[in-house]
Amino acid sequence: MPDSNRKPITQLRADGSLRHLLTLEGLPSQVVRRLLERSEHYARPLTKPAARSDALAGRTIAVMFAEPSTRTRVSFELAARRLGADVVNIEVQLSSRLKGESVLDTVATLESMHVDAFVLRDADPSVPELVASHVADHVSVLSGGAGSHAHPTQGLLDALTVRQRKGNIEGLRIAIVGDIRHSRVARSSWHAFAALGAKEIRIVAPQGLMPESGEFAGCTRLTSLESGIADCDVVMMLRIQKERMTAASIPDEATYFAEWGLTTQRLRAAKPDALVMHPQPMNRGVEIASEVADGPQSVIRDQVRNGVAVRMAVLEATLAGGRP
Amino acid sequence: MPDSNRKPITQLRADGSLRHLLTLEGLPSQVVRRLLERSEHYARPLTKPAARSDALAGRTIAVMFAEPSTRTRVSFELAARRLGADVVNIEVQLSSRLKGESVLDTVATLESMHVDAFVLRDADPSVPELVASHVADHVSVLSGGAGSHAHPTQGLLDALTVRQRKGNIEGLRIAIVGDIRHSRVARSSWHAFAALGAKEIRIVAPQGLMPESGEFAGCTRLTSLESGIADCDVVMMLRIQKERMTAASIPDEATYFAEWGLTTQRLRAAKPDALVMHPQPMNRGVEIASEVADGPQSVIRDQVRNGVAVRMAVLEATLAGGRP
Amino acid sequence: MPDSNRKPITQLRADGSLRHLLTLEGLPSQVVRRLLERSEHYARPLTKPAARSDALAGRTIAVMFAEPSTRTRVSFELAARRLGADVVNIEVQLSSRLKGESVLDTVATLESMHVDAFVLRDADPSVPELVASHVADHVSVLSGGAGSHAHPTQGLLDALTVRQRKGNIEGLRIAIVGDIRHSRVARSSWHAFAALGAKEIRIVAPQGLMPESGEFAGCTRLTSLESGIADCDVVMMLRIQKERMTAASIPDEATYFAEWGLTTQRLRAAKPDALVMHPQPMNRGVEIASEVADGPQSVIRDQVRNGVAVRMAVLEATLAGGRP
Repeated sequence: MPDSNRKPITQLRADGSLRHLLTLEGLPSQVVRRLLERSEHYARPLTKPAARSDALAGRTIAVMFAEPSTRTRVSFELAARRLGADVVNIEVQLSSRLKGESVLDTVATLESMHVDAFVLRDADPSVPELVASHVADHVSVLSGGAGSHAHPTQGLLDALTVRQRKGNIEGLRIAIVGDIRHSRVARSSWHAFAALGAKEIRIVAPQGLMPESGEFAGCTRLTSLESGIADCDVVMMLRIQKERMTAASIPDEATYFAEWGLTTQRLRAAKPDALVMHPQPMNRGVEIASEVADGPQSVIRDQVRNGVAVRMAVLEATLAGGRP
Repeated sequence: MPDSNRKPITQLRADGSLRHLLTLEGLPSQVVRRLLERSEHYARPLTKPAARSDALAGRTIAVMFAEPSTRTRVSFELAARRLGADVVNIEVQLSSRLKGESVLDTVATLESMHVDAFVLRDADPSVPELVASHVADHVSVLSGGAGSHAHPTQGLLDALTVRQRKGNIEGLRIAIVGDIRHSRVARSSWHAFAALGAKEIRIVAPQGLMPESGEFAGCTRLTSLESGIADCDVVMMLRIQKERMTAASIPDEATYFAEWGLTTQRLRAAKPDALVMHPQPMNRGVEIASEVADGPQSVIRDQVRNGVAVRMAVLEATLAGGRP
Repeated sequence: MPDSNRKPITQLRADGSLRHLLTLEGLPSQVVRRLLERSEHYARPLTKPAARSDALAGRTIAVMFAEPSTRTRVSFELAARRLGADVVNIEVQLSSRLKGESVLDTVATLESMHVDAFVLRDADPSVPELVASHVADHVSVLSGGAGSHAHPTQGLLDALTVRQRKGNIEGLRIAIVGDIRHSRVARSSWHAFAALGAKEIRIVAPQGLMPESGEFAGCTRLTSLESGIADCDVVMMLRIQKERMTAASIPDEATYFAEWGLTTQRLRAAKPDALVMHPQPMNRGVEIASEVADGPQSVIRDQVRNGVAVRMAVLEATLAGGRP
């Protein structure tokens, strides 16, 4: 499709309801709060059956991931199915791109098959917004992770997890630790925590993995793990990729763990009841010790569990207003 | 299975109902008309929810594609699910062929799991018919595209799309343009339009991409785009593949577009209200200009939308009579 | 997860109900009988619609196969869906392993998404048991085939197939023929037939494909096809893989067929009403002649049909007791 068809994106409809979810940046805090409340409605302990509804019966959701992901893809898929929707999984690189078809043509094709919402993941951060700018008025676009730019449902599930344990985000001191520079999780979690009134958000990273100076406005920057997490209520560790260590002048995984790995010993710098979080997949023994990942302060499995509830809430919110 | 088990194929049951859909060739025109009427029943504008029924509740459909295809595979899958059927997707080359198992053994296996219908796509044009000649009496086989031989649901959706816009196929002059020689779409659309009484069907192609002289009986052959589409009611452009250009002595895509690409300018040779069609995926800027593909005469997205409705009608027709 | 979390595995719950199905070895014969009776409840002739129930409505089953398999994967998937469950398919090697994530982390993640049961296939025979030792109390693990160790649902479907034709396993003489050494099918079928009171179970193989001497206690060992199947009620042929022929000093497929292929002529050594079985996929013309595979004594397609019924029974039995 020619770019002349491209419309400016607003995530909200004229009536204030959520149409797309591409980023948490700039989303009114009452919208974020409403999503979290609805997510809470769908959250269940693991000993109880999963929540179900027929809110999206008759709707069709296309999940198009151009990057491999078990967790996020299955989480969206289960969320959609537990709301009664049909789901089609499109492995973008294996199907249409084989024939050189553009993402926009594929999306237009699926839209013509009465697909009501697209969940998109791509290494190119502009893809979800590009698609959102071309779809028909009754169609919604959700980001399932866009480059290093945004991963809004991850930000929401992080906020939900903290809220469940701490009652409130307001007044909390939160450290996000690791490869901030390349992390969509860091960006979206920052937006969620900021919208909900966190007292202090720290980004803690080796100098080479810090974001550009204009980014993460209002966050405190710290370049050592111990000082970074000192007195924090929440310690969120990020996945580090080997190829990124070089940029931070760190020669190998053992050295990274020695300087940046979260151990029981180091965790003592944070508050005694600090929560430990990780978006997964984890490199055990690299950014986090197994004893911490599986320890009493870890809420990592709560994050996964909340992921389905958050995606149910987001799918419901965006699709409920979509059709006459 | 030994070939002694092979039975002669007729697509119709003794009572005149449709059992298999392998080709539109030779299908009585009242069967084609009945399928189009039922497709119309399932077609919905995109602003309305997709049509649904429980006509195939309790049935199981296996979709086995040995060639990559987002559009056709998803279209069949959504059609089956919107009729209440269970669908299993079998990626033929990734699963059984890895172990050297024959297609017939795979089909026999799935049949034994109470699969009621097989939707098959293969580069080998004989596969759907081969399978149809071996399955049990209550099982149906649908072609999802067989080599360059047949793509019957595509022919039906093309006919449905023209009928919706023009009221009738009778009396229309239709041009099919491009790589006719290797195109299953051209063959099946020709059969559909011919069965429904088109006044003239033209095949328009460079000499090297024309079919053998015995084929496309009754069609007019033309070897230039302008004369080919002159005064036509319908212009159906086909996808051209780079490796086929050589056969037509065309050195590259730019040269193809210069001689054979449908532009706004060239489209003026057709009737002012001529429909522009394309089976997709499109090579924009090769066989068709983006301005035409997305322009006011294009019904390309209607074709996709009608694809689901046609496949619902075909699945319903073939399976409704299958079991006692 | 650290190994300190690993719990000893028992397949039965305290109340005697089945929680996991990892192996038939040691399973009380009344549990095996109960599963076969319930399987019989779900078995249907192919001319009748497949059995359905909503026994598992609201439950989620993850099917994680690290080896390619159309038959077993689809059989479990259809079994789960025909009981009303949601199914997620995880291609282990294509998703999480790409990021180097451990199987246990993937399982923990899915468990946190309210997955109620895992169906696992892996070349590593310890994987299902490893997973079973880590999941929460309400979660079940089913083996879909573990290395050369166990394939319990295959053993059950073999027993069900024989019981349907012979009325009873007691008093029967059964020959399992071929690559016993590397066969999980041979092991699980042996356990099923032994639990149900077969009079004699023979393992028939070239010396190089015989299991270690301590294994298959109580079975008769024979090293020629003719003497091996003489007077048998059941002849179960196993798939032979080319790379294993070398171990048996057999140079090629033709030589294997000459010595070990089941032909009509050779089958006469067994009882006149002997059943011919094969777990599939078959190498026609290697371990079995097509005339025998498709002949009147073959129950190979019954085995596949029974596979879905057995998996319905096993899923229902394990999941019915799982949640309060």
